[in-house]
Amino acid sequence: MYQLLKKEGAARRGQFDTPHGSVQTPAFMNVATAGAIKGAVSAHDLADLKCQVMLCNTYHLHLRPGDKLVHDFGGLHSFTGWQGPILTDSGGFQVFSLSKLRKIKEEGVHFSSHIDGRKIFMGPEESMQIQSHLGSTIAMAFDECIENPSPYDYVADSCARTVRWLKRCRQEMTRLNGLPDTLNPQQMLFGINQGGTFDDLRVAHMQEIAELDLDGYAIGGLAVGEPAEDMYRIIGAVETFMPVNKPRYLMGVGTPVNILEAVHRGVDLFDCVMPTRNGRHAHVFTWEGIRNLLNEKYQLDHAPIDEHCDCPTCRRYSRAYLRHLFKSGEMLAMRLCVMHNLYFYNTLLERIRAALDEGQFEAFYQTHRLVLDKRI
Amino acid sequence: MYQLLKKEGAARRGQFDTPHGSVQTPAFMNVATAGAIKGAVSAHDLADLKCQVMLCNTYHLHLRPGDKLVHDFGGLHSFTGWQGPILTDSGGFQVFSLSKLRKIKEEGVHFSSHIDGRKIFMGPEESMQIQSHLGSTIAMAFDECIENPSPYDYVADSCARTVRWLKRCRQEMTRLNGLPDTLNPQQMLFGINQGGTFDDLRVAHMQEIAELDLDGYAIGGLAVGEPAEDMYRIIGAVETFMPVNKPRYLMGVGTPVNILEAVHRGVDLFDCVMPTRNGRHAHVFTWEGIRNLLNEKYQLDHAPIDEHCDCPTCRRYSRAYLRHLFKSGEMLAMRLCVMHNLYFYNTLLERIRAALDEGQFEAFYQTHRLVLDKRI
Ligand SMILES: [Zn+2]
Ligand SMILES: [Zn+2]
Repeated sequence: MYQLLKKEGAARRGQFDTPHGSVQTPAFMNVATAGAIKGAVSAHDLADLKCQVMLCNTYHLHLRPGDKLVHDFGGLHSFTGWQGPILTDSGGFQVFSLSKLRKIKEEGVHFSSHIDGRKIFMGPEESMQIQSHLGSTIAMAFDECIENPSPYDYVADSCARTVRWLKRCRQEMTRLNGLPDTLNPQQMLFGINQGGTFDDLRVAHMQEIAELDLDGYAIGGLAVGEPAEDMYRIIGAVETFMPVNKPRYLMGVGTPVNILEAVHRGVDLFDCVMPTRNGRHAHVFTWEGIRNLLNEKYQLDHAPIDEHCDCPTCRRYSRAYLRHLFKSGEMLAMRLCVMHNLYFYNTLLERIRAALDEGQFEAFYQTHRLVLDKRI
Repeated sequence: MYQLLKKEGAARRGQFDTPHGSVQTPAFMNVATAGAIKGAVSAHDLADLKCQVMLCNTYHLHLRPGDKLVHDFGGLHSFTGWQGPILTDSGGFQVFSLSKLRKIKEEGVHFSSHIDGRKIFMGPEESMQIQSHLGSTIAMAFDECIENPSPYDYVADSCARTVRWLKRCRQEMTRLNGLPDTLNPQQMLFGINQGGTFDDLRVAHMQEIAELDLDGYAIGGLAVGEPAEDMYRIIGAVETFMPVNKPRYLMGVGTPVNILEAVHRGVDLFDCVMPTRNGRHAHVFTWEGIRNLLNEKYQLDHAPIDEHCDCPTCRRYSRAYLRHLFKSGEMLAMRLCVMHNLYFYNTLLERIRAALDEGQFEAFYQTHRLVLDKRI
């Protein structure tokens, strides 16, 4: 389903065909945690923001409103109104970061809901069942998200278990996709590479999961506090062992420069809460660097957030107006900045694709890598 | 500037021409307190919600971002992006309800900002100057908002002062409209009828201010806790003395039925925070009555908020999805319900106008007056 159209160095320009439409890669997936984008942005708004893929969180939707309810509504596409591809994570990350009283066993994880303390069990089969109910385009394998740093032996054991879990995920998805009332019988499965910051574990794990011939491969467990250089090194180490004809997804990453560096190293797909979270706090991304609109220097500033941006916010509103909305506690401030930030990320990836199409990616990369993350 | 097109009983169908466009009356004015609609709705969104007039609050904008800043930006139209008529209140209501340590004197009111305690003075001249800076289409006269109930003698004295203040407002606006850097040299002035719940004071005051030949007349000081029947009685009492060829504005009112009853008694213009405030708390208005979307019965409900509504929310989302968004603390819930509620209010007024055009208002009134405020 993935077609490599062009390469420049390690950077890849591709097309990823899914049952809900084609994705031009590299691409940024826009995070809609509980079926809505934080900051009062709807799935319908995403269409104006150059979004190609929406990402929803299995853990949150399982707890509320419940995946069975979403299934009864015909899945996330009908429930949220987004008609393009949807990726759901496995729930693993939230189980390990949000829930309380976790107990990891071979069969899965026992934990308590962060909402009401209710005891829940989730293993590979349960994660696949929930994602099947949600009817997403792409399901992520259920894996253990280890602490960073973790001891070598623990990471090695966890990697082995993640492989066993992955095989169970694949088997369960095959079963689910064959059931008569399955919402998306062509649901895809991505495996997730783990191994902490140990290159040899990362490579060995990548080689093992590559053999399973899944629909795509993700690099997980990065951007969790380690230095960016470690992340770049690990991408470089595993990239060689990732199947060429499958999309590659770097989970939870990152700043515009992180994305630029990862594309440079051969990654195709990204997701991150940064554009939405930062936008809600008046931090906006521009082609000159990152602005904080609460800064007093914007009080009388007639310019839009970014003079080179034609997003719905920049076409209409000044920095001074947005600053005023934040100072007045108006929710509209968050919406307008989240919309700009998502548009900026999606446009960044669009320009990366255009540069690759024209064989100009190296020049694009060199021009922007020292600029985009600057605080201005 | 106001043209009475048709009458049915006391109800009036009219057209009110302003420097920023014509308003078909009866009309509901949509509240954008600090230049934004609470619930992450923008002036640009209002265009999709059948809004004719936007209302902004002088007190809030004077304190933040400051009316001089808005003036430097070319006024509220450039600052917020709303190109139609804008009405600004006088600031009086907030001075009396929000500020601390008020002292009323003949020249005006000394008070402390509710934001930072800063001492501020506002009298008729200051209110007009601020509204001139804001560049609104219609400025409201600065008046005293008395407590309800207040003793007869106090109300009588206050009415007399309000007339003196109104004359100063008119004189100051004439001066301001003639200045070379005035944003809207055709700014209009509405006077405000006061008199508490005393019919004789109301009538005498209305007769006095009617002589001043202002651009429009408002009934103020109602919907502040008195029974609805008192409000209807007072409208009936003063209506006879309101100039026929001027628009009539009932300030801060109200529920759909309040509006229906007031149109029935000859009122043309309305404003209220109810559609925005209630929408943010999951209370939505429909043609069958008022729903609370947090109610458990909506958990699995596939229907839109109102099956007869074609607003941007009802065209796309189910009650179950909206309920889920509220339960998940997603800001999008508020935006979608505020949009529906404003659309509902603007459509209610549109249907009232259509009924008047067809000579069917009495039937429309009888059909809906016992339904619209019901909790369902
Ligand atoms: Zn923008
Ligand atoms: Zn609606």
